[in-house]
Amino acid sequence: MVNQRADIGWQSSKSDSSGASNSGESSKESSRCSTPVLDADRTDRLRDKMKRRIESGDHWFSLEFFPPRTTSGAVNLISRFDRMGSGGPLFIDITWHPAGDPGSDKETSSMMIASTAVNYCGLESVLHLTCCNQTKEKISAHLNKAKRLGLKNIMALRGDPIGEDWVEEDGGFNYATDLVKHIRCEFDDYFDICVAGYPTGHPEAESYDDDLRHLKEKVDAGAHFIVTQLFFRAETFLKFTKDCRAIGITCPILPGIFPIQGYHSLRQLVKLSKLEVPEEIKQVIEPIKENDAAIRNYGIQQAVEMCKVLLASGEVPGLHFYTLNREVATMEVLRQLGLWVEDPRRPLPWAISAHPKRKEEDVRPIFWASRPKSYIYRTQDWDDFPNGRWGNSSSPAFGELTDYYLFYLKSKSPKEALLQMWGEELMSEESVYEVFTNYITGQTNSNGHKIMCLPWNDDPLASETNLLKDELEKVNRRGVLTINSQPNINGKASSDPIVGWGPPGGYVFQKAYLEFFTSSENVTALLQVLKKYEPRVNYHIVNVQGRNITNAPDMQPNAVTWGIFPGREIVQPTVVDPVSFMFWKDEAFALWIEQWAKLYEDESPSRMIIKYIHDNYYLVNLVDNDFPLDSCLWQVIEDMFVLLDSPQVTQDEGSEL
Amino acid sequence: MVNQRADIGWQSSKSDSSGASNSGESSKESSRCSTPVLDADRTDRLRDKMKRRIESGDHWFSLEFFPPRTTSGAVNLISRFDRMGSGGPLFIDITWHPAGDPGSDKETSSMMIASTAVNYCGLESVLHLTCCNQTKEKISAHLNKAKRLGLKNIMALRGDPIGEDWVEEDGGFNYATDLVKHIRCEFDDYFDICVAGYPTGHPEAESYDDDLRHLKEKVDAGAHFIVTQLFFRAETFLKFTKDCRAIGITCPILPGIFPIQGYHSLRQLVKLSKLEVPEEIKQVIEPIKENDAAIRNYGIQQAVEMCKVLLASGEVPGLHFYTLNREVATMEVLRQLGLWVEDPRRPLPWAISAHPKRKEEDVRPIFWASRPKSYIYRTQDWDDFPNGRWGNSSSPAFGELTDYYLFYLKSKSPKEALLQMWGEELMSEESVYEVFTNYITGQTNSNGHKIMCLPWNDDPLASETNLLKDELEKVNRRGVLTINSQPNINGKASSDPIVGWGPPGGYVFQKAYLEFFTSSENVTALLQVLKKYEPRVNYHIVNVQGRNITNAPDMQPNAVTWGIFPGREIVQPTVVDPVSFMFWKDEAFALWIEQWAKLYEDESPSRMIIKYIHDNYYLVNLVDNDFPLDSCLWQVIEDMFVLLDSPQVTQDEGSEL
Repeated sequence: MVNQRADIGWQSSKSDSSGASNSGESSKESSRCSTPVLDADRTDRLRDKMKRRIESGDHWFSLEFFPPRTTSGAVNLISRFDRMGSGGPLFIDITWHPAGDPGSDKETSSMMIASTAVNYCGLESVLHLTCCNQTKEKISAHLNKAKRLGLKNIMALRGDPIGEDWVEEDGGFNYATDLVKHIRCEFDDYFDICVAGYPTGHPEAESYDDDLRHLKEKVDAGAHFIVTQLFFRAETFLKFTKDCRAIGITCPILPGIFPIQGYHSLRQLVKLSKLEVPEEIKQVIEPIKENDAAIRNYGIQQAVEMCKVLLASGEVPGLHFYTLNREVATMEVLRQLGLWVEDPRRPLPWAISAHPKRKEEDVRPIFWASRPKSYIYRTQDWDDFPNGRWGNSSSPAFGELTDYYLFYLKSKSPKEALLQMWGEELMSEESVYEVFTNYITGQTNSNGHKIMCLPWNDDPLASETNLLKDELEKVNRRGVLTINSQPNINGKASSDPIVGWGPPGGYVFQKAYLEFFTSSENVTALLQVLKKYEPRVNYHIVNVQGRNITNAPDMQPNAVTWGIFPGREIVQPTVVDPVSFMFWKDEAFALWIEQWAKLYEDESPSRMIIKYIHDNYYLVNLVDNDFPLDSCLWQVIEDMFVLLDSPQVTQDEGSEL
Repeated sequence: MVNQRADIGWQSSKSDSSGASNSGESSKESSRCSTPVLDADRTDRLRDKMKRRIESGDHWFSLEFFPPRTTSGAVNLISRFDRMGSGGPLFIDITWHPAGDPGSDKETSSMMIASTAVNYCGLESVLHLTCCNQTKEKISAHLNKAKRLGLKNIMALRGDPIGEDWVEEDGGFNYATDLVKHIRCEFDDYFDICVAGYPTGHPEAESYDDDLRHLKEKVDAGAHFIVTQLFFRAETFLKFTKDCRAIGITCPILPGIFPIQGYHSLRQLVKLSKLEVPEEIKQVIEPIKENDAAIRNYGIQQAVEMCKVLLASGEVPGLHFYTLNREVATMEVLRQLGLWVEDPRRPLPWAISAHPKRKEEDVRPIFWASRPKSYIYRTQDWDDFPNGRWGNSSSPAFGELTDYYLFYLKSKSPKEALLQMWGEELMSEESVYEVFTNYITGQTNSNGHKIMCLPWNDDPLASETNLLKDELEKVNRRGVLTINSQPNINGKASSDPIVGWGPPGGYVFQKAYLEFFTSSENVTALLQVLKKYEPRVNYHIVNVQGRNITNAPDMQPNAVTWGIFPGREIVQPTVVDPVSFMFWKDEAFALWIEQWAKLYEDESPSRMIIKYIHDNYYLVNLVDNDFPLDSCLWQVIEDMFVLLDSPQVTQDEGSEL
């Protein structure tokens, strides 16, 4: 199952026992939670998260990205969000590129990138918004759209006027303050608002003090925190903070950290921001300006030293990084500072979406375990994600997955790479078995290529699935084409690095699960075998036409992952749900065609082989309900093969399907 | 916890795997269950239960009772319902006594007795209703009231006209058929309807055939099954059934069985029913008519023999017993027939109510474990019992328990017996400790009386609590006055005779729980000790004024009993809920006064002692979250005593409360 971690910690949030909170009669009136509150961070606003971290003295970091120019750049950036999200940023922010149609539905727009970060990567995100040369209507439209997409935080900026001869517009947006006021006026308290601070004064400001007064106005207009422009010396920021406090600015002020990553990028940035590089830095980098590695190393070292001073000052609750959409330097600085924490603890066994309407989501069908973005996409129109259920009789509809090239569902690999992995030319069904087997084992195929993904799994095997590697290899080799599985777990600690999730002190459980495609001949034998495993094993077997064979109680979901935690109700985040299996079935079968068959020419033998499998194989899922015992699912498959190997029996039973 | 069993079996209700149900697309439209369907019997109607039992060839029995004349008779009858319910009747029925204000709210009315059987004893119940000399309005009012109280089944009877000179009334109810028609007309399909059959013809009928035709009319008007008048020979019933079938009556026909229990009761019944006792029976009982035991033994033997013939005929799906409100004879007949099955399996760990609006109830706070009738009473106005929650922010209110002498909450023991058990005169708080200790150990007190109940526990210790007997004795002796507890359970089979519940093939779990009253001095030490047990132990500590000390996450229920079953979602039927604890607290403290202190005279030392405890003690509950380990709760109490025994520490900490 997915092992990605958003910045979400479980909160103990307990009453002070010595303080002896006196609830008494009043507690009777208090509202009841309708779902176990797994995690306060999930429901809290960014300002509240900051407040809590400041109170606990727990430093944070945040990461700034800009929208990519191309769709393949967008796919890469989203992968980067997933990787950098694993280090635990408090939030990320996406800049607003007025020239790039930033509010549009294009895959590369600021709006869509920020939406993707929130909805599909589960990251708390701040969308930049600039206001100069914009009508109020246009700005309101952007804000409404952002709200609809689940964005909750705005970085309010003036932006750069077009041309040199900018003049103030009456009634228009002339300063960021106007935008802050507009947001508060039109959207009340809905958005958390960030504004920019300039440690050496805004280049266009009349004076440093004048600029500070502008900043105070922005905060007074309703901003919740400040992120500063980059700077090169810790004392620059510390003086600035002191000056801000002196004029009554009390909100968090986050220093903008820019690890120098190259000579040319530094020069360009300095030019744009009209900053001066201090002499001591120039003296170091001028002599090594042709040595990229040396400059990068220096940049890391310089940023680390400066951040240490900032954090030690006690004035800095968190660091904001200008990443330039790169990973290495920022991650290294954070590692050296001890702020990059790849916490293997997961709040739930699947990656949580940060859309506010999904804040109570605590159960999903297991089928989309390797395609969480698809699940989120297909359920994006649902009104709520109620306690323990992901729909009800009046609104269980899954959205159609019509566009298989939806950018966040797109394979990270180009067509050529896919052909290299999955075969330029398929000879038979067995060629397909080999692809699945090589994916499991991690061995190279006959052309020397490793299979890094399959249509149903865009990433290498999860560490949990690795536990089942030997058995999976064996069955895939014989045409049991596995696409999803989990081992049984009988009460491991919630802190277990591989299968653990949820708050500390708990216990997690799983029923063994196996999902695979296999031929109708195999299914005929399997059904014979399964009679011996009643009622221990539940199965759902379906072909592309929707023919459905099951022994499961009518329409009842089977919980296959659950956790028991101190002071909480049971959490059962993963279920095998008969209704959603029929929706998953459509998607799982379609992936054969859309992602695999279409790599080959029409009417080509390779395409026909995939098409044959699509048309004739069954999708099977098996649950072993007896979670305290060793899984019997491998024995079920073994029994199936034994039965298939005894020819008279398979003939007798051939008519069953 | 309560270990009472209603006639509720878990149904596997699985699809036919070989039949290969083709749900396909259609399954997408099907409605979703909003709660795990634990038990088909709970949602099914009586006619459906009968249908299923007939199909499976599983014989049933049912029991007829009449309403008692006195309120103490009512208390006894309700205890009898609980005891006789444990043998697994498919339903019970309550006769309608026109002379006894049968539709009133009196504790002894037919209506209230049937309502109690449904709501508080969880028994599928049939209310008799007679129609002659009644207006349509009156009848409709009775039926509406029955529906409101959760009754779903009516036995439609004509009843005995008043006086000898009865004449048909135009437009009135002259026959049971009229009543059946009226029920169907006014209430559509809501009620399951039973009618009476007369194996030897109704005494007022013109002929046997004429009476059969009347019966056919009643069934055609909408009755669902027939219960017959008593008879003495199996062939009488079998001929009658054959004749019914011959004229097209197809519904179930249940023979009314009357085990002869005494010479005089037989004579009286025969006179009323205008039946003739066969010669062969007369010959046996006349010689022994003064020997009650001999007659009873004969009655049992005669009934068993007749029932064996009936069941062997294949014409009889179930037996209906005229109990005369007595237990012994009917239970013995049922035991000898192998129909009395005290199935230790419970569908949930607490006794289920049979009110239709509670059919999805699957979670309760643990506090009312020994007072389930009080819980049902206090939640009777709730609109629904939604999945996994017992209320929501808009309607969590518990009804006030104003009347402590409410008949179904009344102690089974009279005041004198209570005084004998709990002490005619209390000398000190220690006298109270002794009462609790003797209740736990089962030993007699200094006056030679066994303590069979306490205000919080109207029954002897549950077998589960017996597992904790030694520890409980030890702590009660020192003033930790326990009123509720359960051991931790780490995955025992759901079929376990002591702690098991739910369908076969599952596993049940519990967190250790302990609830007690104790002095404020003890609580001060306890709070010190509990710091060492964070976060393993959750506690709620409250006094009568509502001062509440807790380390539990805000308002979150803690699941303390749960089960994992094949093909189902997790079921968590028992929780420690902070909100309802405050309601329970009121009830638990009030019981000191209402049930105990008021036994003694105003201002008497005994009453003052109980009053002192009520005013000064705290109610404490403790949960050990680490269910896979041995419970630490006994160690917590032990540590508290150790701390109390070291004088300097208690002085230092004396100010904490």
